[in-house]
Amino acid sequence: MEMTRPIEVKGKAVSGGKLPLICTPLVAKSRQSILSELANVIGKKPDLIEWRVDFFDNIGDANAVIDVAKSIKKAAGETPLLFTRRSIKEGGEPINLSEDEVVKLYSAVCESKSVDLIDFEMSNAIEHVRHLRKVSLANDTKMIMSYHNFQETPALEILTQRFLQAESQGADVAKVAVMPKNLEDVLTLLTATLKSAEKLKIPLISMSMAGYGSLTRMFGWVFGSAVTFAVGESSSAPGQVPIEDLNTVIEIVRKSISGG
Amino acid sequence: MEMTRPIEVKGKAVSGGKLPLICTPLVAKSRQSILSELANVIGKKPDLIEWRVDFFDNIGDANAVIDVAKSIKKAAGETPLLFTRRSIKEGGEPINLSEDEVVKLYSAVCESKSVDLIDFEMSNAIEHVRHLRKVSLANDTKMIMSYHNFQETPALEILTQRFLQAESQGADVAKVAVMPKNLEDVLTLLTATLKSAEKLKIPLISMSMAGYGSLTRMFGWVFGSAVTFAVGESSSAPGQVPIEDLNTVIEIVRKSISGG
Repeated sequence: MEMTRPIEVKGKAVSGGKLPLICTPLVAKSRQSILSELANVIGKKPDLIEWRVDFFDNIGDANAVIDVAKSIKKAAGETPLLFTRRSIKEGGEPINLSEDEVVKLYSAVCESKSVDLIDFEMSNAIEHVRHLRKVSLANDTKMIMSYHNFQETPALEILTQRFLQAESQGADVAKVAVMPKNLEDVLTLLTATLKSAEKLKIPLISMSMAGYGSLTRMFGWVFGSAVTFAVGESSSAPGQVPIEDLNTVIEIVRKSISGG
Repeated sequence: MEMTRPIEVKGKAVSGGKLPLICTPLVAKSRQSILSELANVIGKKPDLIEWRVDFFDNIGDANAVIDVAKSIKKAAGETPLLFTRRSIKEGGEPINLSEDEVVKLYSAVCESKSVDLIDFEMSNAIEHVRHLRKVSLANDTKMIMSYHNFQETPALEILTQRFLQAESQGADVAKVAVMPKNLEDVLTLLTATLKSAEKLKIPLISMSMAGYGSLTRMFGWVFGSAVTFAVGESSSAPGQVPIEDLNTVIEIVRKSISGG
């Protein structure tokens, strides 16, 4: 835990450097339902809001996307907004955009200054990663480089490589989310997190998903994960815990590991 | 979790096979204060009561010990009673008895039928371990064989050997409690627990102690530990969590790993 680095946005540690940050996803389809989901979620005081734009029914219209992003930002007040298109192969929804169009959309959103952070997958074409790194830097937008595996938990060395790859490609934050087949896989993800948090200079986010993986959503921050994703209204990935339960567990864990 | 075996007493799974069992220690010094501690603790509904007799000011008088054990048993009702003399080198209190006298005391307590389980350390002389195994079997008293290390967390292989040693010496339950120097040690204890729970035919109890170790007191049961020790009124080892907090976390973890 002592090696977990806080995530900064516009030069300030989010929520005063609190660890872990709790991020709630917005996964509604229409402008109206997204804003109504947000209204419900914001009362639960998450530290970050993630808009999963791959769920949005008008993702093909960049102006509509920016308009919704601005509306979320306005309603979310001080709570930073993370903008994410999750690809199908990493657990996202099908969309009618080519990868070039996705990159154009991300660029337009960065340039509109309507979001604070973007999440872009490391498995994307390297020229796309490099381009968005430039655009996000130019627009003071933080960039999470992410790796998701909904099939399995790769070996320890592959997981630590993914964290390192994000850092070497210039990410502000490295994220790894994997599916466990058993409890050993959960321990592998925690070990990779611990070793990587000791090595990396950037903050990292990690989680094991679904049933047993939910343990890491509750305790992974002790091993170095700076953010945990919680259910505000709807979950965006298997194993997410309701934000109320997560807050309860985190407070008891915090008290216990600091000696009561 | 699916490989965690319940602990049985008098032919019945304790608390109907609930996992994990919560055990609260009694660590007061006098007869009166022990019974007053028990009165406070029993309202919190632990699944097991452990009497740490090394704290008792009259441990030298076997009749006094049996008298207190019977009084605890009466007041505890259905809640099984675990009788433990923890040695100094494994984290216990100084007492004025030779090891031969300790074994005689354990034997007398078993024969008095005033307790349901005894905890005896594997580091004791093998003839003492064997003798108490016979006496406890003859008196329908379950025997936990335990290993504590308050200095460090030995290597994975040594931990798994300790669990195996308890089983091979005829224990009903194997217990390993170790001190972590860092978070890697916590993961080592969990790995040893998971591997041993898959191998052993008897239930096991494990914990990592103090700050970071308290994580294992909250979620070690998922990895195969059948019992977690909680603070009822006073703690008996570093890192124990109040029983109320423990119940809260365990319920949220149970809900989360079973898919919400």
